[in-house]
Amino acid sequence: DHVILCGYGRSGAIAADEIVARGQPLDRIVAIDQSEERIRLAAEAGLIGLRGDADSEALLGLACVDRAKAVLVTAGRDDTTILVVLTVRHLAPDTRIVASIREEENIKLARLSGADTVISPPRIGGYLLADAIGTAHAAPFLCDLMSAAGKVELHERPAAEADIGKRMAEVGGGIVVQIHSQGRDIPFSERERYIVQRGDTLLLITVPKEA
Amino acid sequence: DHVILCGYGRSGAIAADEIVARGQPLDRIVAIDQSEERIRLAAEAGLIGLRGDADSEALLGLACVDRAKAVLVTAGRDDTTILVVLTVRHLAPDTRIVASIREEENIKLARLSGADTVISPPRIGGYLLADAIGTAHAAPFLCDLMSAAGKVELHERPAAEADIGKRMAEVGGGIVVQIHSQGRDIPFSERERYIVQRGDTLLLITVPKEA
Ligand SMILES: [Ca+2]
Ligand SMILES: [Ca+2]
Repeated sequence: DHVILCGYGRSGAIAADEIVARGQPLDRIVAIDQSEERIRLAAEAGLIGLRGDADSEALLGLACVDRAKAVLVTAGRDDTTILVVLTVRHLAPDTRIVASIREEENIKLARLSGADTVISPPRIGGYLLADAIGTAHAAPFLCDLMSAAGKVELHERPAAEADIGKRMAEVGGGIVVQIHSQGRDIPFSERERYIVQRGDTLLLITVPKEA
Repeated sequence: DHVILCGYGRSGAIAADEIVARGQPLDRIVAIDQSEERIRLAAEAGLIGLRGDADSEALLGLACVDRAKAVLVTAGRDDTTILVVLTVRHLAPDTRIVASIREEENIKLARLSGADTVISPPRIGGYLLADAIGTAHAAPFLCDLMSAAGKVELHERPAAEADIGKRMAEVGGGIVVQIHSQGRDIPFSERERYIVQRGDTLLLITVPKEA
C-alpha cells in the first residue's frame, strides 16, 4: 500500500507533502527521478528515493509497482509522462495511475495509455486566472478545498446505511455536492430531487475534525 | 473595461477562453507576448495581440493598462512575471493584478510586487495528484467548479437585502461556502451560527442558468 511518485519536481514534492498530511507514512512513498538533486531532496524529506528513468521496467519492478496503491506520474514533459504511464500500466494492470499533463491534445492520449485520472495544471491555472478577475476569494477557497490543511475539505465516501432513501440535500455530515451512482454523475442541481441509493458514492464538502 | 493578458502561453490561452465564456467581448481582451507565433494564435482567436515585452512601459501604455479591469500576468518564468507585476503596478496603482507563479518562494515576492491575487499551478497540480489517489470524482468536480462550463459554478456576490439577518445555511440561490465580512473570512464551519450582515460578500456554489 505504498505510493510511487514518477517525477519529484514542484508538483511531485507538493503531492508528497499532501499525501503525508492525509496520513500516508513517509517511508511508504517512493520517488523516482533522474535528477540527483531531486532524489537528495526526496531523501531529505524522508521519502524513499530511486534515481533513474521512471519508464525503466527494472526500476519500476524495484519499486514494486504492481503492489502500489497508486502511481502519480508528473515527469514534466508530456512525452515522458505518457511513456511512463504506458510502462506502468503494462507492469501493473490494476494499479491506480494519475498523470499530470501540460498540453490539451495530450490529455486523451494519457487516458488511452492507461491513466485512470488525468489532471492539467496549465488548464487549472487558466481557470483560476479568469476566476480571479471577478473575485478575491474564489482562488484561496478552492486551494483550501483541495488541500488537507485549512478549514474545508472535499471528501468522498460510500453512502452509509443512514443516507439511503434520503434526498441528496438531506444527507448529514457536510454538503453533498455530487453523487456517483451506477456509472452516472448526479449533479448538485438534482440535490432536492435525487434519492440516495445503496452503492452510491458521495462527494461532500466537510469541515476537518479538530487536530 | 478591457482585460490584459501578459503572456499568451497555455494558461493565458485557457484564461482567455474562460473570460470570453463569462461574457467578456473578444475584442476587449489584449494579449501581450514576445512570441510571433503566440501573437498570431491570439489574433486568430479574435483577441487584440501586441508583440513585445510585457514589462515595457510603452507597450503597457499602448494597452491602456491604467484603464484595464484586470491584468493577468503569466509570463512563464517567475522573474519575468514579477518584473511585469512591478511595472504594471507602477503604471496603474488601482488596476487588479493577478499573477501565476511557479516556485513557492516567489509567491510572497509577487504579492510584495503588487499582485492582488497570486495563483500557483504547480501547487494546485500537487494537490490534485494527491486528491486523485483516493477519489475518482474530486478532480473533475473541482474543474467544473472552477470553469464557466459544466454543471456547477463558484460565484461571488454581495449580500442582498433578502439575505441580511439570515443564518449562512439559510441563504437561498445556492450553497454559501464562505463569507467575507469586514476583512474577515467566515468559514463554512460557521454556517449554522453566522448571521449575514449588510456589506458581506458571499461565496456560493450555484447551478448555472440554462443556456
Ligand atoms: Ca482544506
Ligand atoms: Ca462550471
